[in-house]
Amino acid sequence: MAIDINFITILDFIGTFAFAISGVRLAARKEFDLFGAFVVGFVTAVGGGTLRDLLLDVPPFWMQTKSYILITFLALLTTIVFKKWIVKFNYTFFIFDAIGLGLFTVVGLEKSFAVGNPMWVNIIMGCITGAAGGIFRDVLINEVPLIFRKDIYAVACIVGGLVYWICYLCHAPMMLTQILAAISVILVRVLAVHFNVCLPSLKPEPEVHK
Amino acid sequence: MAIDINFITILDFIGTFAFAISGVRLAARKEFDLFGAFVVGFVTAVGGGTLRDLLLDVPPFWMQTKSYILITFLALLTTIVFKKWIVKFNYTFFIFDAIGLGLFTVVGLEKSFAVGNPMWVNIIMGCITGAAGGIFRDVLINEVPLIFRKDIYAVACIVGGLVYWICYLCHAPMMLTQILAAISVILVRVLAVHFNVCLPSLKPEPEVHK
Amino acid sequence: MAIDINFITILDFIGTFAFAISGVRLAARKEFDLFGAFVVGFVTAVGGGTLRDLLLDVPPFWMQTKSYILITFLALLTTIVFKKWIVKFNYTFFIFDAIGLGLFTVVGLEKSFAVGNPMWVNIIMGCITGAAGGIFRDVLINEVPLIFRKDIYAVACIVGGLVYWICYLCHAPMMLTQILAAISVILVRVLAVHFNVCLPSLKPEPEVHK
Repeated sequence: MAIDINFITILDFIGTFAFAISGVRLAARKEFDLFGAFVVGFVTAVGGGTLRDLLLDVPPFWMQTKSYILITFLALLTTIVFKKWIVKFNYTFFIFDAIGLGLFTVVGLEKSFAVGNPMWVNIIMGCITGAAGGIFRDVLINEVPLIFRKDIYAVACIVGGLVYWICYLCHAPMMLTQILAAISVILVRVLAVHFNVCLPSLKPEPEVHK
Repeated sequence: MAIDINFITILDFIGTFAFAISGVRLAARKEFDLFGAFVVGFVTAVGGGTLRDLLLDVPPFWMQTKSYILITFLALLTTIVFKKWIVKFNYTFFIFDAIGLGLFTVVGLEKSFAVGNPMWVNIIMGCITGAAGGIFRDVLINEVPLIFRKDIYAVACIVGGLVYWICYLCHAPMMLTQILAAISVILVRVLAVHFNVCLPSLKPEPEVHK
Repeated sequence: MAIDINFITILDFIGTFAFAISGVRLAARKEFDLFGAFVVGFVTAVGGGTLRDLLLDVPPFWMQTKSYILITFLALLTTIVFKKWIVKFNYTFFIFDAIGLGLFTVVGLEKSFAVGNPMWVNIIMGCITGAAGGIFRDVLINEVPLIFRKDIYAVACIVGGLVYWICYLCHAPMMLTQILAAISVILVRVLAVHFNVCLPSLKPEPEVHK
């Protein structure tokens, strides 16, 4: 198995690592065992892309190379060995996570585009690739999905998809399109957290509980 | 994109709207943000049909037309704008929901039949199309699925499937078969709620908790 | 429909029955109704194999024969009729469950192998076939998945997969390979429960909650 290590691959692995770490850490808070933490980390990292691949009817990407399994192992190991120090790197992980989000979104956009879907489907697939893993993670640890209540997260994926679309309409070169889309996802995510921007919440209907 | 607006399409859209509304309203009770409410509404409306399409290995239906995304947006908007009045239309939504259930069931039966499955598989696919979306909704808002504990819901889909089967055995015309199946689903659902009919619950084994 | 009743089929049915019983019993503790208990039993029994078949892009196995539906009905009926006595047979069910786990794992390994996947994918598919149904069951009853926190369960599937791999590398006859893999799963599971062996848990990071 020859791995073609290029820039995109490295970013993809960094994103996978960051997503897996987030899963393992939340599993640890629920005192899951080693296997449970591994599964939650793996599902966080590859769940979104797997749902996308099932919807597009293409073979699940993580079954094509051992890399994703190995990176999840590495994330589990890192969480265990550096448990005491890991909290100090929260900001580093946040940046890795944002990079992962940007890259996953672009991968989803590209894969859906390649199958010949219309652009609105591509944007949804970019969004699913970036955000669904975190939803599965929260279902597995039996919590209300975080991204439904806090933070700009999936919205960053949608913005990235729109940038991708605009670039496409302007006949921008593919490389530039990908870079701009990924950077816009990362920027929206980082700026939203930095300035503490949230989407408005819906309020329950008061009469319902009477 | 030319939409073929016929009677069935209109009923399908009404059902989708009612299902999405039910998802958005439950998300609002959990104070989800706009994006979270949209996702829960969308999954409630298209989740059952998506699982069916994955099991039948046909392209997910909502990826073929923008309608389902747009209707979910409309449902979200309606819930926000008419929040104070929406409770007064609970009965209207219940009827819409029952119509949606009947129609979704028939769509599921038809799609499975078209792929050449035996009738018992078709009935299950009708049931999944009608009822699985509500299960996904409840998993996403982290509640025990409502239809496992209350009301005749999926059972209405099964009755509709049996009516479909009987019509098929009697060589009834396709149109009549569809109408009778859908009406039987709606009738069973409405009558069960009207007369407060429930399935018997299972009781836990007392010795287990000792 | 002529069913080819051989030894493997009988073991498969016993495993399905035991898995369905475990789902129905947990549903009963949550006071689900008959339909809810049936769905949870069915998902526990066929959920893992269904996820495997979706990932491998082959038709879901339970749609090929009525047997799995009928066995789940039988499990539901058994749980209702023998409710008072069923607790006394906990050990019998545990053994049936372990047999089911061993057999499901081997079926998963074989199906993935037949599609031409590399051995590490086959091991994951064996694991998913054996263990994912129980995860879906716990998501449906809104509990943290049991196998993430207690007992050696999925690890038994992994050991079975490794035994399968070693046998393959040694060019062992297929029948022997299957039997050894299944027996190793069963043995690991039974011995782990007997000697109360667990995987170590991860501990939460204390600083996070400050």
